[in-house]
Amino acid sequence: MRRFVIGSARNLLHRSHQNSQFQRPLLSSSYRLLSSSPSANPSSSSSSTMAPPVALNNINPKVLECEYAVRGEIVTLAQKLQEEIKAKPESHPFEEILYCNIGNPQSLGQQPITFFREVLALCDHPAILDKSETQGLFSADSIERAWQILDQIPGRATGAYSHSQGVKGLRDAIAAGIEARDGFPADPNDIFLTDGASPAVHMMMQLLIRSEKDGILCPIPQYPLYSASIALHGGSLVPYYLDEATGWGLEVSELKKQLETARSKGITVRALVVINPGNPTGQLLAEENQKAIVEFCKQEGLVLLADEVYQENVYVPEKKFHSFKKVSRSMGYGEKDISLVSFQSVSKGYYGECGKRGGYMEITGFGADVREQIYKVASVNLCSNISGQILASLVMSPPKVGDESYESYSAERDGILSSLARRAKTLEDAFNKLEGVKCNKAEGAMYLFPRIELPEKAIKAAEAAKKAPDAYYCQRLLTATGIVFVPGSGFGQVPGTWHFRCTILPQEEKIPAVVSRLTDFHKSFMDEFRG
Amino acid sequence: MRRFVIGSARNLLHRSHQNSQFQRPLLSSSYRLLSSSPSANPSSSSSSTMAPPVALNNINPKVLECEYAVRGEIVTLAQKLQEEIKAKPESHPFEEILYCNIGNPQSLGQQPITFFREVLALCDHPAILDKSETQGLFSADSIERAWQILDQIPGRATGAYSHSQGVKGLRDAIAAGIEARDGFPADPNDIFLTDGASPAVHMMMQLLIRSEKDGILCPIPQYPLYSASIALHGGSLVPYYLDEATGWGLEVSELKKQLETARSKGITVRALVVINPGNPTGQLLAEENQKAIVEFCKQEGLVLLADEVYQENVYVPEKKFHSFKKVSRSMGYGEKDISLVSFQSVSKGYYGECGKRGGYMEITGFGADVREQIYKVASVNLCSNISGQILASLVMSPPKVGDESYESYSAERDGILSSLARRAKTLEDAFNKLEGVKCNKAEGAMYLFPRIELPEKAIKAAEAAKKAPDAYYCQRLLTATGIVFVPGSGFGQVPGTWHFRCTILPQEEKIPAVVSRLTDFHKSFMDEFRG
Repeated sequence: MRRFVIGSARNLLHRSHQNSQFQRPLLSSSYRLLSSSPSANPSSSSSSTMAPPVALNNINPKVLECEYAVRGEIVTLAQKLQEEIKAKPESHPFEEILYCNIGNPQSLGQQPITFFREVLALCDHPAILDKSETQGLFSADSIERAWQILDQIPGRATGAYSHSQGVKGLRDAIAAGIEARDGFPADPNDIFLTDGASPAVHMMMQLLIRSEKDGILCPIPQYPLYSASIALHGGSLVPYYLDEATGWGLEVSELKKQLETARSKGITVRALVVINPGNPTGQLLAEENQKAIVEFCKQEGLVLLADEVYQENVYVPEKKFHSFKKVSRSMGYGEKDISLVSFQSVSKGYYGECGKRGGYMEITGFGADVREQIYKVASVNLCSNISGQILASLVMSPPKVGDESYESYSAERDGILSSLARRAKTLEDAFNKLEGVKCNKAEGAMYLFPRIELPEKAIKAAEAAKKAPDAYYCQRLLTATGIVFVPGSGFGQVPGTWHFRCTILPQEEKIPAVVSRLTDFHKSFMDEFRG
Repeated sequence: MRRFVIGSARNLLHRSHQNSQFQRPLLSSSYRLLSSSPSANPSSSSSSTMAPPVALNNINPKVLECEYAVRGEIVTLAQKLQEEIKAKPESHPFEEILYCNIGNPQSLGQQPITFFREVLALCDHPAILDKSETQGLFSADSIERAWQILDQIPGRATGAYSHSQGVKGLRDAIAAGIEARDGFPADPNDIFLTDGASPAVHMMMQLLIRSEKDGILCPIPQYPLYSASIALHGGSLVPYYLDEATGWGLEVSELKKQLETARSKGITVRALVVINPGNPTGQLLAEENQKAIVEFCKQEGLVLLADEVYQENVYVPEKKFHSFKKVSRSMGYGEKDISLVSFQSVSKGYYGECGKRGGYMEITGFGADVREQIYKVASVNLCSNISGQILASLVMSPPKVGDESYESYSAERDGILSSLARRAKTLEDAFNKLEGVKCNKAEGAMYLFPRIELPEKAIKAAEAAKKAPDAYYCQRLLTATGIVFVPGSGFGQVPGTWHFRCTILPQEEKIPAVVSRLTDFHKSFMDEFRG
């Protein structure tokens, strides 16, 4: 069966020029030329000149070019195995598939935060707000919060399209949450609520990329949304490498080097993507490092695209998340100094509400005319879903000390975060005990990205199977144990090195089984291929 | 203040070649070239070569090109007036803004269908399903349905990302609903659930459009999502004109003529968009007409993109909605004969749940390899919001005779639809009483699109104000009455004719006021400009 991942066996940074056949004609896109006057006589049909049907050789080559490993080949195989197990429980040497491929906590049993769900349910069905039974079912502060939110929505209509940036009152709550987090003002007019963070990333790529001559600086390894979005919008990904040896350090000297290299090839670099805490790498940037990055973007006239969706996922007491907005404001840089976009999502954090598709971007340092263009693009899709909007406001303004729900809310939150920290540590230690594997600490986010030294024979076997070596390892792991990792080649890595990404999300009671299955598999894999 | 609608004063079909300055370089989009080896020495920085800041002259020209009149200039003005009234109630000769610009029923007071909201609330907060108070608050069949839906979601996790096409069990329900509607089989694997219909339309445009040389046949007038999406994806809109004189008739001879014209200019026409019931035109296609359209697409090798989001909005007892899938299957055409995409949304119908952003497309007649590409693009955004997915399944499988909710459900549904039919008729009659205005019947959808003959002096006044004549009329109407119509120039119209789109959505008790304010304004406008 043909898989959809084009070139999955190739390294992300070593792809062939598959696209060169699709050169774009230099025509005006105006369609005035194409219209006949409606009063003219119809010409005769030419049904003999059949247009070709839709096929791989006549679809948009940017679609072909795009890759998204997190739901790629390995996951398709996992779904197939899952169906086989369902149909025939004894068909594989494991009872279930363990999806460690994607940051999807509730799919692995994480429970939603009660307060958030109470408010969402009440906003979905406000007719029950006045009923006496409701007080027996819902906390007093969730009822009060639902009323507050409904009062911010014109006509209390949660079923109406909102303003294309999102309900104003919800943006007010988010701006207040940002202010409380950063200690610097935030403007609700800078907030664009979106269906998760991904559409916000696409909007910025769509705005900035005019052609292959426009480049976006992206970390390697990176979350493949960025490479996919840049490919779909026809731009060039300009990679900068995180330094694995220093815990995935981000060096400004590396940024400068790659910027220069890109410029020397005629690329106009428009923006720098920074993912903090890192995905797939889990590192948390130091404030001094962030300052240097801000200074670099200011000096070089780059938009700073700050992926801050893991801002609540920090597992090391000695480090703290600082938003790039806070850092740039603390340096005295305001609207006129730096163009900055911060992405946030309800899918991550301790809430992990991936299915709700809520998120926002905060845009600062763009002129009114450009912002009107961003608004126009948002308006074409009308608005993001209102439940996601409400949830985005809730995660930025959760219950406070004294609220009826505060105690249970904070217990749920802390329980999830401390468990994630323990799971991260257990898995990190387990990886570091494997032969040929070295794993940096997950300071934040939801992932580990260990490096694996594969025996020469394994690399040969992968070649024979027409797979990247890390993809081959992950496939063998899956078919032997049911554990789904994503090969490092889907995120990018230093050529000749091999990694995989593993989420820290299996429920805590399952971690020992993951570790022992992985350890056993790894030993037998290494035994099989040891030289 | 600069408005975001570029060229709003120009007719949709007579735009300048503003884009010709933005010619695309013919470079490979591979980014292999751009990367230095991470082990090379960092080169020195060149902070003197500042990249230009983000400005209108260096953003993606396709973004500039795109227009979306439904939330365009006139709506921005309406929002400004609304704020002025809020700040100073006596500041304008009306007390409120009446938004007739957009199909957003609940924003104007339409109530949601109780059963749907009960199920959504229960799925948002399943913890209450077992509680005794819940039975006092919710209908028995909504509780049962919520259990059924939760059982279809792995781990009952409504907070998890689903399969990128949507939850399989919900797609099963939708496929069953399509089968019940059409009498022909539907496959859940053909369904892609999306956040409203708009992202589905974008996905198809993204797939089909390679360059300006690829054309999409679109009705004129059209819903401007299509022109916006084609512009954003860099294709060419190939217009075909609906015949106003025959109630917005769609003639295959016109399709053929425009197809030939486009081909003679070197355009590869990839697809035909048909909106049925029509937006903004409200007509319902006759089955024979649909057959001829299917035959045309088959003969010419075009993908048929069928916008069927108004399938429940039919107001004439003598006519019936037929899906294009049903029509093509009834002609004996299957998977191998025609590539067909049907768009459906929870935002329209009697439900009008715009804020929930639910919808789907049903894709038939595409090869497995192309479908894998569509799936890949869907997977980059992970999935659509689960509440919207649930609602999409509910509108395709509402309560049945015998269910506890059936009576109240059908009373709510019929009440909304019959009221919409009355409002459509009242507004149509009112328009036809206005001097120089002629309005076709709204057989379906949510709009009227009357034609207005403007006096020469009014056209001159519009020219002096640098507006299209219909935009000028709509702006005058808004500032005099608070009523928001969208000028026909935002949808496209036969050159030299003028129209506006008006929704039939103000609540029934407000219709007399709309009619009298419109009638008074129109008379004074015509008096002012009569020759």
